[in-house]
Amino acid sequence: MITNDDIKFFKNLLGDEGAYFDAAHLNAYCYDATKARCLPDGVLFPKDESDISKILSYCNQKRIKVVPRGAGSGFTGGALAAGGGLILALERHMNKILEIDTKNLVAVVQPGVINMQLQRAVAEVGLFYPPDPASQEYSTLGGNVAENAGGMRAAKYGITKDYVMALRAVLPNGEIIRAGKRTIKDVAGFNIAGILVASEGALAVITEITLKLIPKPKFRRTAYGVFPSVNAAMNAVYKTLASGVTPVAMEFLDALCINAVEDKFNKGLPRDAGAILITDVDANVENVLDYELNIIRECFNQNGASEFLIAKDEAQAADIWFARRNCSQAITCYGSLKLNEDVTVPRSALPHLLSGIDKISKEFGFKVPCFGHTGDGNVHVNVMVPDKNDKAQVEKGHEAITEIFKLAISLGGTLSGEHGIGISKAAFMPLAFSKAEMQLFRRIKSAFDPNGILNPDKMGL
Amino acid sequence: MITNDDIKFFKNLLGDEGAYFDAAHLNAYCYDATKARCLPDGVLFPKDESDISKILSYCNQKRIKVVPRGAGSGFTGGALAAGGGLILALERHMNKILEIDTKNLVAVVQPGVINMQLQRAVAEVGLFYPPDPASQEYSTLGGNVAENAGGMRAAKYGITKDYVMALRAVLPNGEIIRAGKRTIKDVAGFNIAGILVASEGALAVITEITLKLIPKPKFRRTAYGVFPSVNAAMNAVYKTLASGVTPVAMEFLDALCINAVEDKFNKGLPRDAGAILITDVDANVENVLDYELNIIRECFNQNGASEFLIAKDEAQAADIWFARRNCSQAITCYGSLKLNEDVTVPRSALPHLLSGIDKISKEFGFKVPCFGHTGDGNVHVNVMVPDKNDKAQVEKGHEAITEIFKLAISLGGTLSGEHGIGISKAAFMPLAFSKAEMQLFRRIKSAFDPNGILNPDKMGL
Repeated sequence: MITNDDIKFFKNLLGDEGAYFDAAHLNAYCYDATKARCLPDGVLFPKDESDISKILSYCNQKRIKVVPRGAGSGFTGGALAAGGGLILALERHMNKILEIDTKNLVAVVQPGVINMQLQRAVAEVGLFYPPDPASQEYSTLGGNVAENAGGMRAAKYGITKDYVMALRAVLPNGEIIRAGKRTIKDVAGFNIAGILVASEGALAVITEITLKLIPKPKFRRTAYGVFPSVNAAMNAVYKTLASGVTPVAMEFLDALCINAVEDKFNKGLPRDAGAILITDVDANVENVLDYELNIIRECFNQNGASEFLIAKDEAQAADIWFARRNCSQAITCYGSLKLNEDVTVPRSALPHLLSGIDKISKEFGFKVPCFGHTGDGNVHVNVMVPDKNDKAQVEKGHEAITEIFKLAISLGGTLSGEHGIGISKAAFMPLAFSKAEMQLFRRIKSAFDPNGILNPDKMGL
Repeated sequence: MITNDDIKFFKNLLGDEGAYFDAAHLNAYCYDATKARCLPDGVLFPKDESDISKILSYCNQKRIKVVPRGAGSGFTGGALAAGGGLILALERHMNKILEIDTKNLVAVVQPGVINMQLQRAVAEVGLFYPPDPASQEYSTLGGNVAENAGGMRAAKYGITKDYVMALRAVLPNGEIIRAGKRTIKDVAGFNIAGILVASEGALAVITEITLKLIPKPKFRRTAYGVFPSVNAAMNAVYKTLASGVTPVAMEFLDALCINAVEDKFNKGLPRDAGAILITDVDANVENVLDYELNIIRECFNQNGASEFLIAKDEAQAADIWFARRNCSQAITCYGSLKLNEDVTVPRSALPHLLSGIDKISKEFGFKVPCFGHTGDGNVHVNVMVPDKNDKAQVEKGHEAITEIFKLAISLGGTLSGEHGIGISKAAFMPLAFSKAEMQLFRRIKSAFDPNGILNPDKMGL
């Protein structure tokens, strides 16, 4: 519990405008994109790394829990004070792009910078920051690093971890460390930056991020293939990706998704299709687009595609992508509670994953619209519970999710491709990890945070 | 010290052909590519992961040091029994390519597989494993992962860490763990695979490696630019890489290197040049090569290149690359002892690094031929000591190296771009890392290896 002395310390350090313990603030910082609500004991707005160091040092001594938070847009409760404690809110002051280094193709940012803000800033100087999670307009880069966010472009360009060159961070004891360099190669010392990525804010508070940028490709084209069935589309995905072509994206919508999107937005997708695959290709030389689209068309046709449409202009491409990006929102028509997970399997297992999900959907009697980043084997599976107030239904929904996790793991897949574990998936960790592996996670947690003050009560540790 | 009981245990487990304690074997496993020689107490040849688990479990109880070893081709002593103990030699039995998965573009290998063996095997099915350390014909993939090996193609394709998808490993207590999946994305649990890469065999023994493959580009072309000075070439490097082009390689040879190579191999390089930059471009569509080479030529010319030569055929390209690959060997003409380091700086700092090295060379009175992977800021700096038996000279050589490390770090660079720390650079760790960072390394070491039995006495820990 927070004492009056603690409150005095934080108000003294951060000012009245930087440390809040009133009900309004506690409520404003009790949520994220999950259904869970966890009231913190206070909300702190550090101005800089030095504030963070002082806060952590104090909390470490007093054994006060601290939960770092960016935009609070996570899907697994990473930014929630699940067991109480203080929210360390980084979006107010720690939100500056510190440098865009066009000589070395590197950006240096504070953790509270919005993903899209960086994308736009680097595009202005002809550069490209590829990771584009669906939350790109509001999620922060600190959160993206802590959760190792993915996005639509991972098939060609990889994910957040592939762009993190260096970090500054504050350890739970208040010590400030640097990890990595503004160099492509650095093999001195253990790869601390590598383990801070995807650590869900449980090992250190990231205070500065050095990101790799790449030259912005000059040309881009969007297309989609229409398939009679999900199975045909899933076969097309892995065979296309194995054919020697590297599309930027290979995104999937099943029939439920297509129709939900059409009902809501009317973007001209084929309502009678079993599935569609949306693809983007890019290059600096225009005929590469034709080369790649031809291969993709051929692979799609060989796997039963009935149509292959290339967007005729930017507007049509934007429409197709609008449909894809707004799919998650559109499918809420199928139920009042959406249990959405982001299992990921090796691409060749996608047909098995989707046919298994179909079976689970029928067994449990739920609609389960699926869409996602099939180019990297990542499917957003949405178990739609008709009535969120019906406890039996909700429980059954969670049982269906458990079956889906078991299926994904049996296919060599993972519990999460991009959302993380947090509190939402903590209970499933023993499905995916052995006792030895869980114990190793706990020892690593202790190596960084011996007193267990930093974002504890997460990941089943 | 190893007792008779220990010897009995290991002979019983591995057979007489699998556990050696005789002088011939100890001598055969006392070396690597450094000048250091460290006699181990025994040499073990495990047949499989289960043997490794039993060996480590036993050694952990008995507090016997164990040093995993691939080809012993490392430059920093990573595979040496620096403080005694047993060599765990993985090259004899653990050397199989277990799977090349053409559906998911993945290879699964044992740690003792030679890098080039994998490159050749995947090329046969149209795939590509890019990391190509200079040691590619003899170094093992286990060693490549443990040291996070780089190579010539890092400017475009990255380094070993960018290809490691999953690992199996044995912890010092004998527990077997898996880390990562055969998926592009996996954010469940801490990134154990990420920290095992570059851990120099000090955290766990890697027993199986799942590597990402990519489609093999259909076309490739080699060219080189001739520059009047090192400074002009270094400016050309970072300006070219910042211009929107992504060459596979951008390799550098200074005048000392060029002339040494010509003396020895006579490959037709320009003897009167101040420096040359060798570049490779590749693509699936042929006119991309012209597009990229034109940009490179323009950037080179704008930075004072006197000539730009495109290899007219495969044979000429091979000659150019032969010259580059054999540079390290050729420069031994400049002294009987070569102190070679692989500092790396942000690319825009290359002109400062090389002019600083020139100054140090003059101050200390040594020839310091430089070559390397300037496309990623990585320079192989070679302080040539004329007489290796003259202690004063050798000491002065080491002083020069220290100055070069200080210079690289002052420019935002690292002690090592690809060789690692091992014993050779252990003393320099405090130059690069703070006390808090060194303590964190030690706590991580303890989280994996509480008894300190696995490849201890390395990295200054």
